[in-house]
Amino acid sequence: MERCRELVRPALVEAVGRLHPWTGEMAAYALGWADTAGNPDPGGSEGKGVRQALTVLGAEAVGADGRDAVPGAVAVELVHTFSLLHDDIMDADTLRRQRPAVWKAYGTGPAVLAGDALLAQAVTVLAEAPNPRAAAAVRHLCRTLNALVSGQAQDLRFEHRPWNGPGAVGPEQYRSMAEHKTGALLGSAIALGAILGGAPDETVTALERAGRHLGLAFQAVDDILGIWGDPAVTGKPTHGDLRQRKKTYPILTALADSGRAAHELAALLDSPQRIDGEAAGRAAALVEEAGGRAATRDEARRHLDTAHRTLRDVPLTRTAAQELDTLFTHLLDRTW
Amino acid sequence: MERCRELVRPALVEAVGRLHPWTGEMAAYALGWADTAGNPDPGGSEGKGVRQALTVLGAEAVGADGRDAVPGAVAVELVHTFSLLHDDIMDADTLRRQRPAVWKAYGTGPAVLAGDALLAQAVTVLAEAPNPRAAAAVRHLCRTLNALVSGQAQDLRFEHRPWNGPGAVGPEQYRSMAEHKTGALLGSAIALGAILGGAPDETVTALERAGRHLGLAFQAVDDILGIWGDPAVTGKPTHGDLRQRKKTYPILTALADSGRAAHELAALLDSPQRIDGEAAGRAAALVEEAGGRAATRDEARRHLDTAHRTLRDVPLTRTAAQELDTLFTHLLDRTW
Repeated sequence: MERCRELVRPALVEAVGRLHPWTGEMAAYALGWADTAGNPDPGGSEGKGVRQALTVLGAEAVGADGRDAVPGAVAVELVHTFSLLHDDIMDADTLRRQRPAVWKAYGTGPAVLAGDALLAQAVTVLAEAPNPRAAAAVRHLCRTLNALVSGQAQDLRFEHRPWNGPGAVGPEQYRSMAEHKTGALLGSAIALGAILGGAPDETVTALERAGRHLGLAFQAVDDILGIWGDPAVTGKPTHGDLRQRKKTYPILTALADSGRAAHELAALLDSPQRIDGEAAGRAAALVEEAGGRAATRDEARRHLDTAHRTLRDVPLTRTAAQELDTLFTHLLDRTW
Repeated sequence: MERCRELVRPALVEAVGRLHPWTGEMAAYALGWADTAGNPDPGGSEGKGVRQALTVLGAEAVGADGRDAVPGAVAVELVHTFSLLHDDIMDADTLRRQRPAVWKAYGTGPAVLAGDALLAQAVTVLAEAPNPRAAAAVRHLCRTLNALVSGQAQDLRFEHRPWNGPGAVGPEQYRSMAEHKTGALLGSAIALGAILGGAPDETVTALERAGRHLGLAFQAVDDILGIWGDPAVTGKPTHGDLRQRKKTYPILTALADSGRAAHELAALLDSPQRIDGEAAGRAAALVEEAGGRAATRDEARRHLDTAHRTLRDVPLTRTAAQELDTLFTHLLDRTW
């Protein structure tokens, strides 16, 4: 990942540098490069750059030079930053990577604008790439953008759905949302590398599929951490997703169970009372008892396995395929 | 315009129909097609469709079939709707075409999402156009998107600038903002038609230039109407831009004057007091006395003349060139 970051960094800096200085300042803050005064921020954590690494490895895996993937890698990092920025506004999330979200630091209006600027620049970088496959890459990115927006729409609509009864969100609806919201961009990250590297359509499709499953596995792990993660590691409160009554996979699969724990959990979530320290602990225990944690762990394992298997089914260059394989495993290698 | 609207409408409906149903509902509301319940809205005014008409005529003017321009026309209408939607959030404007703005009707988060969906769909429609010039058209649209975002950034930053002294906004800075925020999209509207119609680069550049000047003329007229427009026609309060202390061209050119009226105007704008009915009337009189209204009218005339002249300097098909000329004049033909 370090190597890929080094390769992509100059082009990413250049793309952010082409923005209006003010939106560029917000973008640099969102990317963890600077504080709100525009100074280098030692407290700003940059994100691991998973997506850009996937793009570079996607090109190398199909036998191309990693440099061919750079415009794609820049585009996915910019799109990822755009989506975090706008999603934080929509979800009213005040913290991002242990710092105030952009809308908290700069105001909602400016944060909307900064997201727009990042999105426009992402498409621009790809559209202007000196690569005969640039137009195909743009079409691919467009499909991803539409998927991201759909996934966020699905997610926002979940809030208005009941915990129980015919209107409740089923685990498979949650999976569709996660496939759009998280899977699409990880799939696109590898696929864009493969497209820019000149791979045939079948290879692109297979790599995209691997990335999508990786994304679904990643989301499942994230959902486990959202309830049982160590606050010192995640930077979020214990049982955070339960306190916020977020409809995540462990909770939805637990509710889909017919046992006593599922009923008690539904009653707790349905009640108008705040879910605080003790109630949150009780709710977490109920999710676990009703099988939500185990089901989510299975979900993560299944998607990760499919991702690895899909990689093995495509003819890829050996080193890059191994690196992709390692990256897939590493990405899920958080305490869960 | 009626003919162009008929030509573009099916593709625009189809593009909106591809959105997630919820973002599609917000888009239909923003486009004036439906009320907030999703029913046809007799009170919703649809906008005149100036931009789509420019795109269709841009293709016809270079000898192509207007149908070639349709993906470009759809893209500019979607981008225009996106920018109104996000700008209303940033500017905290509660009304749009005499109805609640999307963020007022649906909430800020959903409105951010609906704008994102429109933007993504705009690029998609163009990127997937079955036209050998589609990639060139996407690159052009990208430049326009970056310009729009820059223009909005410039405009938002103006709010924080003083009315007087070295930090004040000069008329030429205002013009640069307007060129990005209003000129770019009108220029792009014609240029996209010409690109999709297969015109050579010089013709595209000239048509874009004509559209940009048209946009600057349009903005100048809009600024006059923002102060002296008839509320019954504009749907906004008398002297609205003065009440809101918006830094528009008439006000900035008046302040750049050295006379007594300019000084009194500066003092009035600088004071912490609300600018209400009587004070607003006085401010409007001062802007006029300091030459702001006349300068803005000149600005509009000059840009409109340049737009017409630029059209005459390019070899264009006769009927479409005449229709463009008529459209240019018509567009400015509001009471000013």
